[in-house]
Amino acid sequence: MEVMQVLHMNKGEGETSYAQNSTVQRNIMTLANSFIEEALAVLLCNNNYPESMGIADLGCSSGPNTLMLVSEVIGAIYAISRQMERPMPELRVSLNDLPGNDFNDIFVSLPAFYNKLKEEKLGSGFDQCFISGVPGSFYGRLFPRRSLHFVHSSSSLHWLSQVPPALDSKAGVTLNKGKIYISKTSPLSVLEAYLVQFQKDFSLFLRSRSEEMVSGGRMVLSFMGRRISEDPSNERSCHQWELLSHALMSMVSEGFVQEEKVDSFNAPYYAPCPEELESEIMKEGSFTVDCLKAFEVDWDGGSSSSHEAENCTKSETLTSGQRVAKTIRAVVESMLESHFGKEIMDELFRRYALLVDDYFSKTRPKYVNLVISITKKG
Amino acid sequence: MEVMQVLHMNKGEGETSYAQNSTVQRNIMTLANSFIEEALAVLLCNNNYPESMGIADLGCSSGPNTLMLVSEVIGAIYAISRQMERPMPELRVSLNDLPGNDFNDIFVSLPAFYNKLKEEKLGSGFDQCFISGVPGSFYGRLFPRRSLHFVHSSSSLHWLSQVPPALDSKAGVTLNKGKIYISKTSPLSVLEAYLVQFQKDFSLFLRSRSEEMVSGGRMVLSFMGRRISEDPSNERSCHQWELLSHALMSMVSEGFVQEEKVDSFNAPYYAPCPEELESEIMKEGSFTVDCLKAFEVDWDGGSSSSHEAENCTKSETLTSGQRVAKTIRAVVESMLESHFGKEIMDELFRRYALLVDDYFSKTRPKYVNLVISITKKG
Repeated sequence: MEVMQVLHMNKGEGETSYAQNSTVQRNIMTLANSFIEEALAVLLCNNNYPESMGIADLGCSSGPNTLMLVSEVIGAIYAISRQMERPMPELRVSLNDLPGNDFNDIFVSLPAFYNKLKEEKLGSGFDQCFISGVPGSFYGRLFPRRSLHFVHSSSSLHWLSQVPPALDSKAGVTLNKGKIYISKTSPLSVLEAYLVQFQKDFSLFLRSRSEEMVSGGRMVLSFMGRRISEDPSNERSCHQWELLSHALMSMVSEGFVQEEKVDSFNAPYYAPCPEELESEIMKEGSFTVDCLKAFEVDWDGGSSSSHEAENCTKSETLTSGQRVAKTIRAVVESMLESHFGKEIMDELFRRYALLVDDYFSKTRPKYVNLVISITKKG
Repeated sequence: MEVMQVLHMNKGEGETSYAQNSTVQRNIMTLANSFIEEALAVLLCNNNYPESMGIADLGCSSGPNTLMLVSEVIGAIYAISRQMERPMPELRVSLNDLPGNDFNDIFVSLPAFYNKLKEEKLGSGFDQCFISGVPGSFYGRLFPRRSLHFVHSSSSLHWLSQVPPALDSKAGVTLNKGKIYISKTSPLSVLEAYLVQFQKDFSLFLRSRSEEMVSGGRMVLSFMGRRISEDPSNERSCHQWELLSHALMSMVSEGFVQEEKVDSFNAPYYAPCPEELESEIMKEGSFTVDCLKAFEVDWDGGSSSSHEAENCTKSETLTSGQRVAKTIRAVVESMLESHFGKEIMDELFRRYALLVDDYFSKTRPKYVNLVISITKKG
């Protein structure tokens, strides 16, 4: 699987779209707001208050979350500049995602976004915000040298640049039989293959950003992870994949899916623990860690009221399992579809919803989400 | 009609798409190549050879022409840098069009484009080209202050930011009955309304670019126009619209279209003459004119061989009228559809093709295309 070509959130505005099913990611994004505000305050409060400020959101996706984040960042900069009685910097905002992302969806909502910005910030002399789309993998260079002051990424860095090559079915050996990610039954070599790929990717991510950011520039990154010293096969960091492999294997047992297909699929995903992050940051050497915190996030997006607001005609009739299935489907369908075929998707996620409902009857499952704030060294 | 919301070239890769029907625009683009090369040579040969170079294509559209232009510009810079034995500058390439443009179509072809670039320019140390999409109207600011060295625009600046307000049906008076652009029978007030809108738009265009470009920066602009001192209602600069209004009026006479609908539609388009351009450039004051030239371009894309290469299964069976109709449809359908409705499009362009064929039986029609190269003053 070519992750760069295949991975994208479900496009458009339809029932299975990411735009309609990204409440969990919105909640996760909100967790980082205080980190963003703190990072921007430090960035702007020193002697290097910039005339022009480069801002990037990496893995911006599409749907309402994309411009919500831009609003949050601009709002924070606006508040700081008012407090400091300084003119707003010129803002260069780059929205990055893989080339298959639905950039058209973001771009058509930009005129209304700019109008709102002008109305709300009118009288402050603020009319210079330039938003662009930058397609490409953040595991590599995306931006000109020393052009960025602030970088944000949410719900994206847990995606690897590729399936760990040792797990790739082309290698001929099936290491992770019947599973699609790290599982309790996975051999140690599977855990190692995933860790090595994460280390390689995250280090390339840091090296690339290091060239693109100014000294003192700040980065706030938020993604799925594990708590300190938690094992990669612990339930909290991989049970959503475990249940998805159960759904697939139930279809194998009824002859709807070939077993080899499941054996040869492994998610290009890794949920790191704080030590793994800090170790790569230290090795790469360009950044210092300001803050790192773990949060727990409900699988089904937390309070149902927030979900109802998004999808008000149907949500009252949806079970938690169905809501989780819709959230996961909007994210992973492009990958599963390219491997297993479009025709099994409805049935797969119907079964997945039932398995998740069963799991909810025993526990109240939560993801662990890490937020880390780091500074580019001088 | 909100031009910003409505105008876009036909999306995708289908039979009526711009991607499949933009041979004429490709030919027009090629006419400007020597202007581009000359402008870049002057830009890079002086003492200000930049480390990082900002390049923008305004009205980039989608389909094969978009990245062909980027290739041409990068190729020219590459050749100049080799000749000067200087390292390639870091290239920041911004592709601009209105928010409704099919940016997704461009972005999915970028990974292959980058790979080709790396292969062809390998060994020259050239691996830093950053392409982004910038949605918005070029009649207004799009880019940060003093960030651009070279600006290009082809087949775009003949589009106005809006229908001249005096012609807008909301004003209650129908000035341009039965016509959709300047026509031999249009009253002088129609010509004036179009000229005033062009002057307002082109002057805003220059003022916006003036803030965005560095001193000595170069702009090569190419668009539909008229020859020196040619009247705006001359056949060469508006007959494509005249025939389209005939096709519409033939549908009015048969009851398929309401006459008021035709009366209330006016194209947001203007084909200026060199004097009108130079007068606005002088008034605005930030640019000097290096070169201005008029070219004639066949309505049907010139040699049929180039067209066959693009659409090889069908082109041999298409008449000139059908080819012109497909070219024009790919450009104006979004606007016509929003005003007249989707359902009449097939029939309208069938009739248009017949009228164009009839016109071809009497003459060999050509557009006048102006290319102008200007420099930002120091």
